[in-house]
Amino acid sequence: MERFKTERISGDVVTSERTEPAETRPIWLDKGGRTVKVIDQRKLPHEWIIADLETVDDAIDAIKSMFVRGAPLIGVTGAWGVYLAVRNTSSQQALIDECSRLKLARPTAVNLVWAVDKVLVDVLSARDADGRLQAARRGAEDLAEEEAENCRLIGVHGLPLIEKLAACKGGQAVNILTHCNAGWLACVAYGTATAPMYAAHEQNIPIHVWVDETRPLNQGARLTAWELGEAGIPHTVITDNAGGHLMQERMVDLVLVGTDRTTCTGDVANKIGTYLKALAARDNGVPFYVALPSSTFDWSTKRGKDIPIEERDPDEVRYVQGWEDGAMHTVLVPPEASPAANYAFDVTPARLVTGFITERGICGASEADIRQLFPEKRA
Amino acid sequence: MERFKTERISGDVVTSERTEPAETRPIWLDKGGRTVKVIDQRKLPHEWIIADLETVDDAIDAIKSMFVRGAPLIGVTGAWGVYLAVRNTSSQQALIDECSRLKLARPTAVNLVWAVDKVLVDVLSARDADGRLQAARRGAEDLAEEEAENCRLIGVHGLPLIEKLAACKGGQAVNILTHCNAGWLACVAYGTATAPMYAAHEQNIPIHVWVDETRPLNQGARLTAWELGEAGIPHTVITDNAGGHLMQERMVDLVLVGTDRTTCTGDVANKIGTYLKALAARDNGVPFYVALPSSTFDWSTKRGKDIPIEERDPDEVRYVQGWEDGAMHTVLVPPEASPAANYAFDVTPARLVTGFITERGICGASEADIRQLFPEKRA
Repeated sequence: MERFKTERISGDVVTSERTEPAETRPIWLDKGGRTVKVIDQRKLPHEWIIADLETVDDAIDAIKSMFVRGAPLIGVTGAWGVYLAVRNTSSQQALIDECSRLKLARPTAVNLVWAVDKVLVDVLSARDADGRLQAARRGAEDLAEEEAENCRLIGVHGLPLIEKLAACKGGQAVNILTHCNAGWLACVAYGTATAPMYAAHEQNIPIHVWVDETRPLNQGARLTAWELGEAGIPHTVITDNAGGHLMQERMVDLVLVGTDRTTCTGDVANKIGTYLKALAARDNGVPFYVALPSSTFDWSTKRGKDIPIEERDPDEVRYVQGWEDGAMHTVLVPPEASPAANYAFDVTPARLVTGFITERGICGASEADIRQLFPEKRA
Repeated sequence: MERFKTERISGDVVTSERTEPAETRPIWLDKGGRTVKVIDQRKLPHEWIIADLETVDDAIDAIKSMFVRGAPLIGVTGAWGVYLAVRNTSSQQALIDECSRLKLARPTAVNLVWAVDKVLVDVLSARDADGRLQAARRGAEDLAEEEAENCRLIGVHGLPLIEKLAACKGGQAVNILTHCNAGWLACVAYGTATAPMYAAHEQNIPIHVWVDETRPLNQGARLTAWELGEAGIPHTVITDNAGGHLMQERMVDLVLVGTDRTTCTGDVANKIGTYLKALAARDNGVPFYVALPSSTFDWSTKRGKDIPIEERDPDEVRYVQGWEDGAMHTVLVPPEASPAANYAFDVTPARLVTGFITERGICGASEADIRQLFPEKRA
């Protein structure tokens, strides 16, 4: 990534030196407190572009257009969106209206509504006008830190699973299959599905990760492969079609994925294609775990089929972005005249899930097990 | 194979006039009898390139590099390869050696060995040197015609399945999901999985086809979508990840695929990812049919796990070809340093297959049912 550019979402591209926080995170407030900075994940790993968010519309666009993505990061971006709303609005009603728009940016990840409400309702409702900006900033910062810590704890609680598998492998690498990107780029730090991988790698437990490329936007091939490569974790990119064969051939010891929303009964909405891997895991006796912070549980939805599944622009399927001759290109694959459909998520029913790895520990995929771990959560 | 006549389908550059047989087929002998012509399927639908095969090495390269692909067409190309071998060799031993090399061009499709042996052994062994060239030509032509007729009959026998589903749809389209390309480009005419679709379309039965793009080489998005579009059959390109969700949502009435090799017990080797769709079909009660001519049955292999699964160049996964600004481009998706793996096929166990559609009719996915339809076949 020698190509460092900064651009404003709604402005012209300005070339400048690489801007990065001290510790690499996908979102942060710049020193002046005026601009929220995000890594533009659409261009990774080939281009490193930092986008400036200065308004609620910038935040909505960053979420909708997937500059930022991943349930925890969508939530944190929503929290920073509330901060931007406070900066740019004068009345309480205007703030509420801006937050309502923000919550609609994408429908599936429950973290967005949760995070916006957490700052708007829990943090700001008791504040008078004077302290609100500072409080909103503190609210977003706290929420980001909390999610980072939750992910660290997911690593702590997921590590023993990998240790146990490693104990049966006689020194050979534990093969973990993951789908899409549930790494630090999708969260704030550590990632959800990747946190136990990092924890195992730090303990010198040999692991190897099968990275589903994850069509249509290739978050696995582009983001997960890049994160794992930067961390020195052995990995191999595969097509989304390959996981079933690998499981049949006993080349996968564990499937570990994130989720965009999980019902309190254990049905898991995640990137489209997750359900197919869960079916293959079940058919081959491979454990299938979902890693998530509690912010991704939907405490009021009982049935996975009630989770709204986003349908995105079919051109995300028809066109593929990649790197050629020192520049990004966007190429058309099917015939110009052929239509496409682009459902972004599917729902893996709880019956196919071995367990959840959360910041409080591991639990089974049933409402009783989940609520036992989070007894304070009400529907 | 540098002797291409080129017409760019999507572009305005025409380097020569389009060469085509009277009836479009993916392979034919030119009028002079010297050159076997094939459509270069790697560039479709964006470029129309005809490649000339003049030697066995040309035929091997066309099969290996996937100018031609699809089990029946690989077989027919093998048969024409024998013709080219006869043209270019003088001794019987040299001919046998050339045919042995030809049979190794790709490992999974059983049609290759079957077709080469059919011309070499059944047709040529009783011939003296004088009549061999003419006999080999006749052998390849007959085999191609036989496969075309088999595919036509697959359409005849598959049509009632679609008719039955249509009867329950109250005038709405029957939604058929297919994986990869099992159309006329993969065969000689009609296709295998597509033959019943063409038959239904001709009968004015409304159908709509979900076309899996089929990574890594996108034969679904590039070839099946193009074939269906040319035939005026409504279709929608989807990612390979999407089929499970569509089946959960009752948006698929029938899964219909081809196969590269099916054991006499009913285990189905087909393009990687087929197994995942079969699992989803079973989980959602969607009928899963495999269409094949008898040349694709492996009468001597009992277990799917004994079918050799080809591993191809990982760069087929890492790079994507497509059309931009009037030219083909090849773009890199994952980080340059990330390795990839490229298993080309998987095996769907017979227990997940509802039935086989063959040139003799439909049968269940068991050795008894298959052998009842083909009693003359010996292991």
